[in-house]
Amino acid sequence: MNKKAIYLDYAAATPMDEAVIKAMEPYFMGKFYNPAANYLSAKSVKDEITEAKKSVAAQLGAKHTEIICTSGGTEANNLAISGVMDKFPRKKVLASNIEHESVLKPAEKYDHSLIPVDKRGAIKLESLKKLITNDVVLISVILASNETGAAQPIRKIAELIKQVRKSRRANGIGLPLYLHSDACQTPCYMDINTNRLGVDLLTLNGGKIYGPKGSGVLFAKTGVEPKPQILGGGQQQNRRSGTENPAAAAGFAKALEIASGKRKDEAARLEKLRAQFVEGLFKTNPKIVINGHPKQCAPHILSVTFPGADNERLLYQLEEKGILAAAGSACSAASDEPSHVLRAMGISDTDARSSLRFSFGRATTSADIKHLLEILGNLIA
Amino acid sequence: MNKKAIYLDYAAATPMDEAVIKAMEPYFMGKFYNPAANYLSAKSVKDEITEAKKSVAAQLGAKHTEIICTSGGTEANNLAISGVMDKFPRKKVLASNIEHESVLKPAEKYDHSLIPVDKRGAIKLESLKKLITNDVVLISVILASNETGAAQPIRKIAELIKQVRKSRRANGIGLPLYLHSDACQTPCYMDINTNRLGVDLLTLNGGKIYGPKGSGVLFAKTGVEPKPQILGGGQQQNRRSGTENPAAAAGFAKALEIASGKRKDEAARLEKLRAQFVEGLFKTNPKIVINGHPKQCAPHILSVTFPGADNERLLYQLEEKGILAAAGSACSAASDEPSHVLRAMGISDTDARSSLRFSFGRATTSADIKHLLEILGNLIA
Repeated sequence: MNKKAIYLDYAAATPMDEAVIKAMEPYFMGKFYNPAANYLSAKSVKDEITEAKKSVAAQLGAKHTEIICTSGGTEANNLAISGVMDKFPRKKVLASNIEHESVLKPAEKYDHSLIPVDKRGAIKLESLKKLITNDVVLISVILASNETGAAQPIRKIAELIKQVRKSRRANGIGLPLYLHSDACQTPCYMDINTNRLGVDLLTLNGGKIYGPKGSGVLFAKTGVEPKPQILGGGQQQNRRSGTENPAAAAGFAKALEIASGKRKDEAARLEKLRAQFVEGLFKTNPKIVINGHPKQCAPHILSVTFPGADNERLLYQLEEKGILAAAGSACSAASDEPSHVLRAMGISDTDARSSLRFSFGRATTSADIKHLLEILGNLIA
Repeated sequence: MNKKAIYLDYAAATPMDEAVIKAMEPYFMGKFYNPAANYLSAKSVKDEITEAKKSVAAQLGAKHTEIICTSGGTEANNLAISGVMDKFPRKKVLASNIEHESVLKPAEKYDHSLIPVDKRGAIKLESLKKLITNDVVLISVILASNETGAAQPIRKIAELIKQVRKSRRANGIGLPLYLHSDACQTPCYMDINTNRLGVDLLTLNGGKIYGPKGSGVLFAKTGVEPKPQILGGGQQQNRRSGTENPAAAAGFAKALEIASGKRKDEAARLEKLRAQFVEGLFKTNPKIVINGHPKQCAPHILSVTFPGADNERLLYQLEEKGILAAAGSACSAASDEPSHVLRAMGISDTDARSSLRFSFGRATTSADIKHLLEILGNLIA
């Protein structure tokens, strides 16, 4: 990274931690064996993949057999949605209307409804309640929005689902009901223990947690067994074919281990930076709007509307001053459409086109925020 | 790798070339940006992915827009088969009965027939001809068998397909007919120019060509447009969603570039080693059988039946002497079934269970072959 630049797009990508690279290197040339081969040196690589899965599972309060390695968050989300729905192709999936496209697009292949969110970007539990008809088999709600940081009431949804399951049993309805959460943005800052959250499926992405790009994980609780989407040699207990990638598994596990270790401190540190930023923003221009919940949020993401400003122009001006931010999610950066997440919150297209996403990370300092505020002050005052 | 061990399982996995690692490293910490982001430093990463695709395309005689990066050969094979068949779900796919499971399993989702092979493991063109009915839209034939090395008559199949297309046009049949080839085993030794081969789709795998595991490529000729199998942010011209992985792209491109540069010399060198091995084997035991074509083959793979021997036991004995070989493909190593490839060639289950696959690579020397022959001499004489 250009040393002069201040990178504020950690929600789009993170650099790899040096310890992650170190964890991967042994598999590049030395332990390069195909983990499915039968000789001891290959079996020991296979064992090391199992160790990596055990480490990931420990962070999730899960069993290592519940961890499926994928090529990233997008593949994991696809496996969660299509994998469950392909087992119940005539049933229904619910997804919040602020999900990432890698949840929404697979959901669109099936009978589906979108769960609305309120003005602060959190899903409306009452609306969800009404949507859970007897043909719903899967509910997918992101743990914290990748565009606003708004945390979703996953535990409450899990409670609701428990009641629905109970009532289905009482009424002799055999259809299961599963809860999936896309947690790609949260491992560095929020609890991802699957028991405490009450989820059946959880998506993680190495490229968002200082781990390797092209690495991801789907947690799938024993019994859920999503139908495999990539077929072949039957690797990973026949749940995801393709030669297993020990470097990616080891790198991902190390990244998650580091994220868990730093979680409490980093969350507290970034909450302070967020508060510093918000306070400074309002001083600069009282008309700005923070999109999302002020408290119930992932602390590293902040969506701000600068009324009247053109976000593309503002981004460009910031970049000229060495500040790298985003208009929305990187995945839809190429699209000209205003963010579907902001729209879902009732924000007008005009205001959506005046909004920026700032996302902080390990290298972000209070001095960076101060500098950012000075520059923004000149641009939007 | 244990320095004393002689690794003869290059068809299962290859170590990464140092130059490949060097090509990947800049993207680990420095140029870690999300290639879809809008600032210049991200756009330059995106440009470097395009350069990597251009380099791959050049080796294939293709356009860079015809290159889809995947998480490996298995995903690329799935995308080729399911991607085409999902566009024509009521039509038919033909695959040889020696294809890798990552072709066979997706083909089984659709109306399909298997193309038989002869005793030497090459498909029977006459049988194929009869199988190409007017509802066939895709034919998938591996470029060289991953179990026997037997090269398949891809150019002749392409010629046949040209005639079928002509006749379909003449008869007002609008259904296209595409040729896919799984070329995972061949870039280091055989021509993979898609124009000369006459293929519409071609699969490559970084992990088999001294490139990164978890990297692969599907070449899809302009106009074929396989239906995307992983949905989301619409990366790669909406053909494969998921944050693009610049390290994998750069590493893959470098690996293919090196493979192409060494191809002629390495093919000639390994042909000699193969000849040395075959000659020595027959001296040791005239009853052994080489499974596959003696000349029309990828030079690095040799399948040998040792009549009366138990291949699992033989593998174990070889490993004790520091020699790492395989009973069949690594992807099916965990299965107890005899190889479907050897069965397809008419080899009895008993003989299949007496067969080993040896596969050579860049570090294999004439001294290794001599040593292997000495050890085999003691075990099977």
